[in-house]
Amino acid sequence: MLRKWQFLGLGLVLGVTALCASFVGGMYFQHKDARRRLQKLIRTDPYAYYVSPKIYEVFGFFGTQDKADHRMRQIMKYGFPGLDDLRLYSDFVLSYDRRNRVAHWVCEHLQVDSIHFVRGRRGQNPYQADMSVPSNFRSELTDYRRSGFDRGHLAAAGNHHLQQNHCQDTFFLTNIAPQIGQGFNRGAWNHLERYVRNLVHRFGSVYVCTGPLYKPKQRLGGKLGVEYEMIGLNLVAVPTHFFKVIMVESKLQLGKPYMEGYVLPNAPIPDDLPLRSFLCDIREIEHYAGLKFFDGLRRSAIFGSNYPSESQVFREFG
Amino acid sequence: MLRKWQFLGLGLVLGVTALCASFVGGMYFQHKDARRRLQKLIRTDPYAYYVSPKIYEVFGFFGTQDKADHRMRQIMKYGFPGLDDLRLYSDFVLSYDRRNRVAHWVCEHLQVDSIHFVRGRRGQNPYQADMSVPSNFRSELTDYRRSGFDRGHLAAAGNHHLQQNHCQDTFFLTNIAPQIGQGFNRGAWNHLERYVRNLVHRFGSVYVCTGPLYKPKQRLGGKLGVEYEMIGLNLVAVPTHFFKVIMVESKLQLGKPYMEGYVLPNAPIPDDLPLRSFLCDIREIEHYAGLKFFDGLRRSAIFGSNYPSESQVFREFG
Repeated sequence: MLRKWQFLGLGLVLGVTALCASFVGGMYFQHKDARRRLQKLIRTDPYAYYVSPKIYEVFGFFGTQDKADHRMRQIMKYGFPGLDDLRLYSDFVLSYDRRNRVAHWVCEHLQVDSIHFVRGRRGQNPYQADMSVPSNFRSELTDYRRSGFDRGHLAAAGNHHLQQNHCQDTFFLTNIAPQIGQGFNRGAWNHLERYVRNLVHRFGSVYVCTGPLYKPKQRLGGKLGVEYEMIGLNLVAVPTHFFKVIMVESKLQLGKPYMEGYVLPNAPIPDDLPLRSFLCDIREIEHYAGLKFFDGLRRSAIFGSNYPSESQVFREFG
Repeated sequence: MLRKWQFLGLGLVLGVTALCASFVGGMYFQHKDARRRLQKLIRTDPYAYYVSPKIYEVFGFFGTQDKADHRMRQIMKYGFPGLDDLRLYSDFVLSYDRRNRVAHWVCEHLQVDSIHFVRGRRGQNPYQADMSVPSNFRSELTDYRRSGFDRGHLAAAGNHHLQQNHCQDTFFLTNIAPQIGQGFNRGAWNHLERYVRNLVHRFGSVYVCTGPLYKPKQRLGGKLGVEYEMIGLNLVAVPTHFFKVIMVESKLQLGKPYMEGYVLPNAPIPDDLPLRSFLCDIREIEHYAGLKFFDGLRRSAIFGSNYPSESQVFREFG
């Protein structure tokens, strides 16, 4: 008799264990399944990506951490400068200013592959309005026509040559701002873009954040004020300045990154002025733009002002 | 022998069923648990709330729909006008413009309870800077001092009397903008706020969205441009206009809501000008502000322009 009870007892224990295991298995399955779907969402939706650390904390039951490597994660590795109307394109992330019909900022992550020049590609890329922006906030080709301003790129077309659609995306008008042509878009701004590509060639991994500024200036009566033009039927703002904040990742393990910020006036700039005369304190750019760059990084480390010339950057940082 | 096999078969079927049930039970438990934690997050984080419909879709395995009633859900029932730097206060939701150091918009949901006047409370509520805004983007009391401008409320203090902290929160400088005092903040703007409270008394449930405008005007040479002053060391923008978009929920079941939009210049307004002369097409306000109001609603239904006088609103809508 005792043996029978022992059998029954063992059976019971085994059964309960199996049930428990099955229950935990069910939890695990549901957990994994939800997480997989979540990751799919996070890859395409910038706001879902932005809140994802908090969502993962909520999911914390089995202690997960998303290690998946997708484009959004690569580009936004150091945080969002701002959160207004975020838009993911094939090779850059953009925040759109619906009031001014010009982007707040555009973030890019550049590597040697992506800036490899492919001849003749540019000709096939026409400028076009981004129809995913509601019509009330959209800038159109007609706004720029006969305005006297160039359609200036924020994320440079020359930075996105890895795939055909990468380059095409830079021609959406969300990535375009009214720029003075002679002496700016075709001058100093172009030099700055080429300087960035040189940094990529030399150091391999560069993060760039580009955008417009509407800087206040002294007005009649000594008061400070903001003044800028608006062009076209859709009232596209003409920024007074443009900024580029550049972060170069060190090739050394544990090496500190290198940061520089430039502010150029949207005006003809004499050809003999060196780029480095437009170096600007990044905190000042943040103040005027209302943005926060590379939030996760300590600023104390290495800065543009440490190097008085460009060649010194190339020589000494690394 | 056959009986024994039958028993074994039955046992096996029961066992597998129990295991399956336990597995599903485990899934369900994990699902419920994650959802409960998620809801807690959604109540306090505006961005989590914004993406929550998509997250719930991800969770869709057991087909859930969040029915929980919390303050954020009540106030933002008809959608977010914009998504820049969202902030939840005890009785209103605000989007902060870090570039101008003034809010983009403030949304309130008003009911009769909340506007019940409590004597003497206002005196205890001092204006204060919101320390949760990074210092680089924060407006301070000193910015307004000797500026010649009133500290004008966007969400009116008189709309939030249900709890002491509700009223206190309206005195945070994030909810304040530089307004002309004589003839505006103490004149027409005050009339507009009182008119909104009358609507609440009459109809019970009113949604209000308030914010600044920086309207372009004709400049020298016939070009359109934006011009506005900035005050204080932190450069707080002085809006050229202020808007209020009002949505009154019908008391009738299936009744259509009623919408009105006002735009008042930030200037002394003669006392004899009727409020209704400042009625403005809501789509026009949206264009200048870069915002989208009560997105979920069809605009065709009932509009301010249908009623030439305020008394007619009170008489005919309901």
